[in-house]
Amino acid sequence: MTLATTPQTTAATCEKLKCKECGAEYELQAKHVCEECFGPLEVVYNYDTLRRTVTRESIQKGPNSIWRYRPFLPVLTENVIDVGTGMTPLVQANRLARRLGLKKLYIKNDAVNMPTLSFKDRVVSVALSRARELGFSTVSCASTGNLANSTAAIAAHAGLDCCVFIPADLEAGKVLGTLIYNPTVMAVEGNYDQVNRLCCEVANTHGWGFVNINLRPYYSEGSKTLGFEVAEQLGWQLPDHIVAPLASGSLFTKIYKGFQEFVKVGLVDEKAVRFSGAQADGCSPIAQAFKEERDFVTPVKPNTIAKSIAIGNPADGIYALEIARKTNGNIESVNDAEIIEGIKLLAETEGIFTETAGGTTIAVLKKLVEAGKIDPEETTVAYITGNGLKTQEAVQGYIGEPLTIEPKLDSFERALERSRTLDRLEWQQVLV
Amino acid sequence: MTLATTPQTTAATCEKLKCKECGAEYELQAKHVCEECFGPLEVVYNYDTLRRTVTRESIQKGPNSIWRYRPFLPVLTENVIDVGTGMTPLVQANRLARRLGLKKLYIKNDAVNMPTLSFKDRVVSVALSRARELGFSTVSCASTGNLANSTAAIAAHAGLDCCVFIPADLEAGKVLGTLIYNPTVMAVEGNYDQVNRLCCEVANTHGWGFVNINLRPYYSEGSKTLGFEVAEQLGWQLPDHIVAPLASGSLFTKIYKGFQEFVKVGLVDEKAVRFSGAQADGCSPIAQAFKEERDFVTPVKPNTIAKSIAIGNPADGIYALEIARKTNGNIESVNDAEIIEGIKLLAETEGIFTETAGGTTIAVLKKLVEAGKIDPEETTVAYITGNGLKTQEAVQGYIGEPLTIEPKLDSFERALERSRTLDRLEWQQVLV
Repeated sequence: MTLATTPQTTAATCEKLKCKECGAEYELQAKHVCEECFGPLEVVYNYDTLRRTVTRESIQKGPNSIWRYRPFLPVLTENVIDVGTGMTPLVQANRLARRLGLKKLYIKNDAVNMPTLSFKDRVVSVALSRARELGFSTVSCASTGNLANSTAAIAAHAGLDCCVFIPADLEAGKVLGTLIYNPTVMAVEGNYDQVNRLCCEVANTHGWGFVNINLRPYYSEGSKTLGFEVAEQLGWQLPDHIVAPLASGSLFTKIYKGFQEFVKVGLVDEKAVRFSGAQADGCSPIAQAFKEERDFVTPVKPNTIAKSIAIGNPADGIYALEIARKTNGNIESVNDAEIIEGIKLLAETEGIFTETAGGTTIAVLKKLVEAGKIDPEETTVAYITGNGLKTQEAVQGYIGEPLTIEPKLDSFERALERSRTLDRLEWQQVLV
Repeated sequence: MTLATTPQTTAATCEKLKCKECGAEYELQAKHVCEECFGPLEVVYNYDTLRRTVTRESIQKGPNSIWRYRPFLPVLTENVIDVGTGMTPLVQANRLARRLGLKKLYIKNDAVNMPTLSFKDRVVSVALSRARELGFSTVSCASTGNLANSTAAIAAHAGLDCCVFIPADLEAGKVLGTLIYNPTVMAVEGNYDQVNRLCCEVANTHGWGFVNINLRPYYSEGSKTLGFEVAEQLGWQLPDHIVAPLASGSLFTKIYKGFQEFVKVGLVDEKAVRFSGAQADGCSPIAQAFKEERDFVTPVKPNTIAKSIAIGNPADGIYALEIARKTNGNIESVNDAEIIEGIKLLAETEGIFTETAGGTTIAVLKKLVEAGKIDPEETTVAYITGNGLKTQEAVQGYIGEPLTIEPKLDSFERALERSRTLDRLEWQQVLV
């Protein structure tokens, strides 16, 4: 525990790993694939214990971070890595709601998550806490950028050796925002899916803890906190509709699992929540499968500015598909121009600067409202998962420029007059 | 109120404005300079009411933001702008402490403050809440970057018109991180002190609310929350020593005021807290005055990479001097190379990526420890006030590069071997 305030938590309740496909069970080790059927492994908890021991009050007395939900997370000791991750604001987005024609819209703002400004800090905090319990001294990941930032930062804080793998063509802010923590950085000349395949091999030959490979069952549980927090922040109730970006599909399925678990242990009332997913046209294998009513996902080769969600062969794609369908949600995609407009729209109306993944979510939200696929009366939550300062090149050239003036009053007055004239002209064009 | 959770606050207790020099009193209007003696005006509260009505429990029941301290802030209505600002982590920095030779070191991490990743979100949340109460529809500021980001973002959220003034040579991330919210941006060809002088003229000729000029008495009170939060997060006690950056000097004096107010109303026990300040060599008018034992500050022309604290003519410089002296603290400065090393040191040991101002604070912290001016036994808090993603150019070229590899196992193994050999060579050099 590294924060100044002391957490109040109850004992861990995770019991085993279980295959999502065939149900085979395993001990809580560094393992992510079923030996029987190659299905993905998931952590199982004792929900009876959870129902008996966890209350709204016990959670509220906990630390102001994801670790207030520790009984729902797959760590065994009290000694977790807490750098203040989680409990990001759920902002009532009235100005954006009015622009879109919605009545009750909220933004879950992980663009200001701690310490590295994306939702990945949640999954990495959990994965590295578990990695330390399992005795790993070197941690690693295959990343589209945000995960590399987060793994390098939290490993530095915890004093773990770190080696991260990224595609060589990542945004400058994401590379620098990893190197600053002084890990080993491998820039792989290929796309994320190639990086991921290489990392699977490395995980087999080196005794490293890859947060999103051999530690994936623990790692992915961290995303449940995005469900827990929204339920708590809405006053212990579930929303009607959520919109979240889809990369591997894991985040989407874990928000769902988070809501289900809170219902299961009696922390919130049961409710039908619609799950809608957002992809970029340039990498939309799940959206395509949804549109074509397929129950399998065909891999694609990514080509979009939304690099952080550009996973062409999404590991949890079919589970995301299944959830969108059974909750009466949708999966949509938008093009790069719409993504940039989404970033600008959120910034102008709500003062939240998100990266391309968040622009994708807002653009899909807009598209779904315009298509009548989100009811204006629904309480809707859009998940913003990363910060715009990391993908500055995406909006450079699309946001205007400062008016350069001399440090004199008359120079200012002339510039102000020019800008007002330009505004009027723009409005006249809008009105015409 | 714009967050999903509802705040629980008691009534406002601010009563009037009072001149810090001659004591002349004024109504709570948009005014920052005394008509009698040109001294700065400050907000006065009713501490009897505060002592009677505010408890640790009433604060803890409040929102998870600076607005939990609303009775200590200069707003009259319940309708404040709450975008989740404040309540940033106080991180126990054990790894950095070991590197420096300290025992109890904490980092107050405003690099992840909401919404725009600097402590300025605190002062702007207060200033714009008050601006709205006073009826302003256009808000403005003179900024070295962080303030422009914050004013533009929070004005966007609140639906206020916004015009910001910055020096034309600011870091790219700070310009883009302002433009994205679509305010009017005036890039002034001059340094901050020239920008500030121009804004004083504009404030007189236009009916705008300049957060750090005519609204300055309200604005600056927001910084007290950096004192309040540290006291609360340390378990309702004061630290022994704080280190904070000095730009105008306002932050420093308001952390002091925050501690004093908590003592005054009985929320914490009285204690001698040492106040040490950090400046960059390239703009160190307060450090120079401290060193030369002057009680006046001679303005300088700034020339440093720490642009966000490059104020050559600091408005509250003499008050900062006074506090450092009477608390037995110090004011030190460091050069640009030390600032970069400070940024890297904090990132490598604690996983916190700060901008140049934070690098200055860490470098001064190190210098003070090495000079025996901070006792290893003291509970020390270093204030990190902004995020490193905004000043990427400062560290570019000083943080190494990724190892570029092909997506093949043998290419990875060769690169890993090379990097380990390099590490060994570096260690040998260190040992020689």
